[in-house]
Amino acid sequence: MISKNQIKYIQSLHSKKNRDQEGLFIIEGVKLVTEFITHEAYQVIEVFATSEYLNKQDELFKGREFKITELTSEELQKISLLTSPNQVLAIARMVTPELDISLLNNSTTLFLDDIRDPGNLGTMIRIADWFGIKQVICSPTSTELYNPKTVQASMGAILRVSVLKMSIQDLAPHLKEIPVYGAVLTGKNIYTSSLSSGLLVIGNESNGISAETLTYVNAPITIPPATSNGSESLNAANACAIICSEFHRQLNYST
Amino acid sequence: MISKNQIKYIQSLHSKKNRDQEGLFIIEGVKLVTEFITHEAYQVIEVFATSEYLNKQDELFKGREFKITELTSEELQKISLLTSPNQVLAIARMVTPELDISLLNNSTTLFLDDIRDPGNLGTMIRIADWFGIKQVICSPTSTELYNPKTVQASMGAILRVSVLKMSIQDLAPHLKEIPVYGAVLTGKNIYTSSLSSGLLVIGNESNGISAETLTYVNAPITIPPATSNGSESLNAANACAIICSEFHRQLNYST
Repeated sequence: MISKNQIKYIQSLHSKKNRDQEGLFIIEGVKLVTEFITHEAYQVIEVFATSEYLNKQDELFKGREFKITELTSEELQKISLLTSPNQVLAIARMVTPELDISLLNNSTTLFLDDIRDPGNLGTMIRIADWFGIKQVICSPTSTELYNPKTVQASMGAILRVSVLKMSIQDLAPHLKEIPVYGAVLTGKNIYTSSLSSGLLVIGNESNGISAETLTYVNAPITIPPATSNGSESLNAANACAIICSEFHRQLNYST
Repeated sequence: MISKNQIKYIQSLHSKKNRDQEGLFIIEGVKLVTEFITHEAYQVIEVFATSEYLNKQDELFKGREFKITELTSEELQKISLLTSPNQVLAIARMVTPELDISLLNNSTTLFLDDIRDPGNLGTMIRIADWFGIKQVICSPTSTELYNPKTVQASMGAILRVSVLKMSIQDLAPHLKEIPVYGAVLTGKNIYTSSLSSGLLVIGNESNGISAETLTYVNAPITIPPATSNGSESLNAANACAIICSEFHRQLNYST
């Protein structure tokens, strides 16, 4: 049984201000919570779950140190952010990774310039994970990593991808020797360019890459449309998916 | 000025049942409405707009036969489905294209198997448009094309892409001579397969391609992940974007 104070406390973590203050965030759903418990990247500090979930977790919970509270589906509904809550909600501690310069120099790092939609951010981290990109840097104006929508959309990818906030200016000293690719509407054709490791910049959903960030892009690239009288753009997450795919193909499957 | 009856009538088109009954749907926003007015694929039958919009449309409205109603921003708010309504809302007549067998035989056609989210459907039509795919077939269980969220997410792509509903069984007689590609988790690597024109099947967001539809797939394909311990999947729209991109690349830029 969950107390009124506990409900109030979890609900307080629905807001960014309180999440940041406590350094905690919410994860939900059987699959995601189980992944967070078994993975060492994050520390789960409290689990709220229905008996249906708890009865099956003897193995998973063995030797864990987090607090467990059993609740009813109705109580879960009160603390959940999902429209269809799924048996379990957990609270985990945020991590703040530092820039890994070796990853930056020797593999593909994603730089997300002012991505505003939490769902898009989560989706792009999921894409990075799929294609083996281990480091994602968000501009300070980007939406927050620990927004529940970001966490849910990443589908566990934030366990495997290091996501940090850093301005392009602070990153600049490390960009002198590497290609800085930027997804723009009038760059070189990604299919016929020779793509290598480096920084890949994806811009804001409506405005693309900011003028300031563009000054650091030394390799503007474009997904060529089939015709000139079709769509004017792809959405940011789809563009990110296509470009990451083409990097992956050229670095691994090109002959 | 808009009447109470007009408001009620437009609000009735917020529901699928009434849209289908009237054969009408809603489009919103300056860019989209202007595109629909100037494009011949659809007939706009009524426009509701603020004076700010109307004052600039002399050229656009010349010789058009639709009815125009001026309203205030507050009135627009009442009939709009957007959280931030943008100057204009229009009502257009649905179209019901038939299967184009020549397109099916000589180019890439997308088959969307039980796509449930209107935003995803709109996004996939936008992807098709970007890559020059002219025909998209939705399984009968897929979400509706004329849901306002689909229309908005397509960003005008439904003007240029023919979208129809048809079961895989009805399509089957036309599939005997062409490759039927299906995006699955254990198919051939898209980067090293030789992709050609044909039908490309994308499955449901959670469950992938249905067992029934899979029996028609003769060329299962997969986006290979970088590692075996990363993400288990990509979201359906991202997978669609990546696969359409790879078809486009191989058919146009492969040497």
